[in-house]
Amino acid sequence: MARNTQVAADHHAPPVTQTLAQFVAHHPSRGWSDAVEHEAHRTLMNWVGCAVGAAHHETATAALGAVQALQPASQATLLGRSERVDMASAALINGISSHTFDFDDTHLKTIIHPAGPVASAALALAEHAGGSGRALIDALVLGIDVSCRVGNAMYPDHYDRGWHITGSTGSLGAAAACARLLKLDAGKTAMALGIAASQPIGVREQFGTMTKPFHPGAAARAGLMAALMAQHGYSASAKALEAPRGMMQTISTKNDWSEITSQLGERFEISFNTYKPFACGIVIHPSIDACARLRAQGVTPDQVERIELKVHSLVLELTGNKEPADGLQAKFSVFHGCAAGLTFGHAAEEQFDDAIVNRPDMVALRRKVVATVDQAIDEASADVTAVLADGRRVHVFVEHAVGSLANPMSDAQLEAKFRGMADPVLGAARCSALIAACWHVAAAAEVRTLARQGALSAEAGRHTG
Amino acid sequence: MARNTQVAADHHAPPVTQTLAQFVAHHPSRGWSDAVEHEAHRTLMNWVGCAVGAAHHETATAALGAVQALQPASQATLLGRSERVDMASAALINGISSHTFDFDDTHLKTIIHPAGPVASAALALAEHAGGSGRALIDALVLGIDVSCRVGNAMYPDHYDRGWHITGSTGSLGAAAACARLLKLDAGKTAMALGIAASQPIGVREQFGTMTKPFHPGAAARAGLMAALMAQHGYSASAKALEAPRGMMQTISTKNDWSEITSQLGERFEISFNTYKPFACGIVIHPSIDACARLRAQGVTPDQVERIELKVHSLVLELTGNKEPADGLQAKFSVFHGCAAGLTFGHAAEEQFDDAIVNRPDMVALRRKVVATVDQAIDEASADVTAVLADGRRVHVFVEHAVGSLANPMSDAQLEAKFRGMADPVLGAARCSALIAACWHVAAAAEVRTLARQGALSAEAGRHTG
Repeated sequence: MARNTQVAADHHAPPVTQTLAQFVAHHPSRGWSDAVEHEAHRTLMNWVGCAVGAAHHETATAALGAVQALQPASQATLLGRSERVDMASAALINGISSHTFDFDDTHLKTIIHPAGPVASAALALAEHAGGSGRALIDALVLGIDVSCRVGNAMYPDHYDRGWHITGSTGSLGAAAACARLLKLDAGKTAMALGIAASQPIGVREQFGTMTKPFHPGAAARAGLMAALMAQHGYSASAKALEAPRGMMQTISTKNDWSEITSQLGERFEISFNTYKPFACGIVIHPSIDACARLRAQGVTPDQVERIELKVHSLVLELTGNKEPADGLQAKFSVFHGCAAGLTFGHAAEEQFDDAIVNRPDMVALRRKVVATVDQAIDEASADVTAVLADGRRVHVFVEHAVGSLANPMSDAQLEAKFRGMADPVLGAARCSALIAACWHVAAAAEVRTLARQGALSAEAGRHTG
Repeated sequence: MARNTQVAADHHAPPVTQTLAQFVAHHPSRGWSDAVEHEAHRTLMNWVGCAVGAAHHETATAALGAVQALQPASQATLLGRSERVDMASAALINGISSHTFDFDDTHLKTIIHPAGPVASAALALAEHAGGSGRALIDALVLGIDVSCRVGNAMYPDHYDRGWHITGSTGSLGAAAACARLLKLDAGKTAMALGIAASQPIGVREQFGTMTKPFHPGAAARAGLMAALMAQHGYSASAKALEAPRGMMQTISTKNDWSEITSQLGERFEISFNTYKPFACGIVIHPSIDACARLRAQGVTPDQVERIELKVHSLVLELTGNKEPADGLQAKFSVFHGCAAGLTFGHAAEEQFDDAIVNRPDMVALRRKVVATVDQAIDEASADVTAVLADGRRVHVFVEHAVGSLANPMSDAQLEAKFRGMADPVLGAARCSALIAACWHVAAAAEVRTLARQGALSAEAGRHTG
């Protein structure tokens, strides 16, 4: 992922975020001259006059139309929760939730996580507007195509420069999906894309903070609002993406326009979407996958005397912690990954619970894993042999771990992953119904049904914890 | 304003905005293979599972706290209108209105229009939260300082690259103002700035469309929401502005950090704020100003036989239309500017009404203006002589037109400008009260009073038109 960018990054910048924060929080009230104080009043008065003067201009009226479409506020479901909010806020919050575990989908060519912005906006709008399941799936495919094609055009320069490409392209995808759901004509759809083009969201410095998942959420909200504004007559440049001072040339040096136009309507970027099977670093995935395959072949933890693991050196460099003390450490332990794979057949969020990590059988099983480096083995592969108490040796070699494009997760594996995340929140019965609703959504007269199945009913309360 | 940028702009980009808009609007439903259709369902299901799974994570809960602070929705005034909306939407709409006439304030060093983002956010929050006038003015000074200092650091590279610097720095200024109003400590203020740092808004390609004034509005909303989220415990990088993959290095090649840190708390950027006196291109301002001074010296249109105008060549190149047919054309007619200056003493939005432009006395007066180029005269200056019917010659030379930093608008002139915009909406009596409320706001126990004086009462209806 390390590439050269056009301009060297300045690693010695002073801490201006903190400097400004201290200033804003602590500078005394009226801690300035009479001239500054008077200028503040002049600034205020001039601004009030301008705002009053244009208050009935068609610009303000069109924007207000979009804002008023968000009332009354109890419009859309927050998945897994009982609160209901306006559709723009639902797009925001569902977008945040879906990226919080970093466990969502990945368009590998751009490392865009495409569903967060697009699905969050589309579901909220379709639920409120009474859209059909068919319309939702169409909007999802088309919206993801827009995000990922723009991403293809700008990647990798744009990402290297510092943009979180999921959020910076996500506003466009969400706007496209919502324009489609609103049945806007091509002219107004261009306006929706144009309004979204002024809102690329997210820089990579935020990784590791709550603002990372904010990016897909904010992109979802921006795209939904852009479509509503276009519907109400709001205008933007008709070449807001490609013009010299448009979005793409402003935020990326590289722009391969053919990535947008080539095979449009024939090749769909959603075909290249992948899903992460395990709730930990990708480098452990082949080892977990191999141990899960041992389990599938009938190997049980109590039979095992030793697990011989051969991996690329990077695996032990990054995840060589044999005695993780908690769930967070276990996410960086290939030994825990192997123990989870053999014991549970998977490694979802719950397999990284502190309680599971510290279970005596898990501690014991981790200690039975003997890992060695074999540079002949690719980072994406793992070689595992279980040596059983009866002397048998069971060998598994994983070339492409599950979840890669070459070896995608099966539908059953996707369902299991879903249950691992959603069962603790909704309970198994609701969870099964929700899975079925997802598979059959294209035939549903109203998306509303699915959305409401994803809500936690206020009476029921949360299933656990 | 023409400068070289690091990277040559691509002026031959294909029209991808239209291409994508056509595709999104017209591609047939389910116009793809079964494999694509199935992948769409897998994408949806995986996304739903992720969203349900993290629905009760502190990240989602903190964001929801901020969203719920926007309910119930009737929280804040839209200046000049009777509708009330939630405070984030009020920040958006007031920010849009105040920039719609392109008549707001200008920080000349960066050409940032600072009040739009900052005042729009601060007024809406202070109104709803019961803030004092003192707190509002403090927030305005500090927020504008943050926007303009960050702008100083990045200008001109950042602007040349394509960013509308008012919106791209405005999120930070609005976040700072709102953090101050919410009395956040320095740590949470840094989080508010950090969340805002992922939301630079606006590209210059939008100039000439409704999306230009959207930029300050969207920045106001983003900053207000960032502060609310930080208040509710939402986190961001503590070095989101300055880090190598933080906001500033991602969106600008030039970053002069000392512009942020130097004389912080001693020099206030609001001191360098200017206000445009006339509702037309800046190049006509000296001529209007000169003719208004003739009027102030007692010269009346009926006395005038001829007006001899000497200006820089650029003035006639850009605004040499002697017979404008309507208000829009009149904005590019120095002849109309002179007629308006002599007749009304100013040239606000109403002096560019079609009816005024086509009034016989205005047509006649424009024809009495004889303009010649004098390259010895600066663009910012004008030399005017009125030749009267009785043979007298009255001469005025304007070196620095009113509204420049060297010759700022007086408070009385600001009031007149205000009336020109606000009288037609609110009526003269309410307008006078609102002006008084602005001058005395620092002593007001509650900003709410001022805000509500700026509203159009639902019963009263709009004063005219």
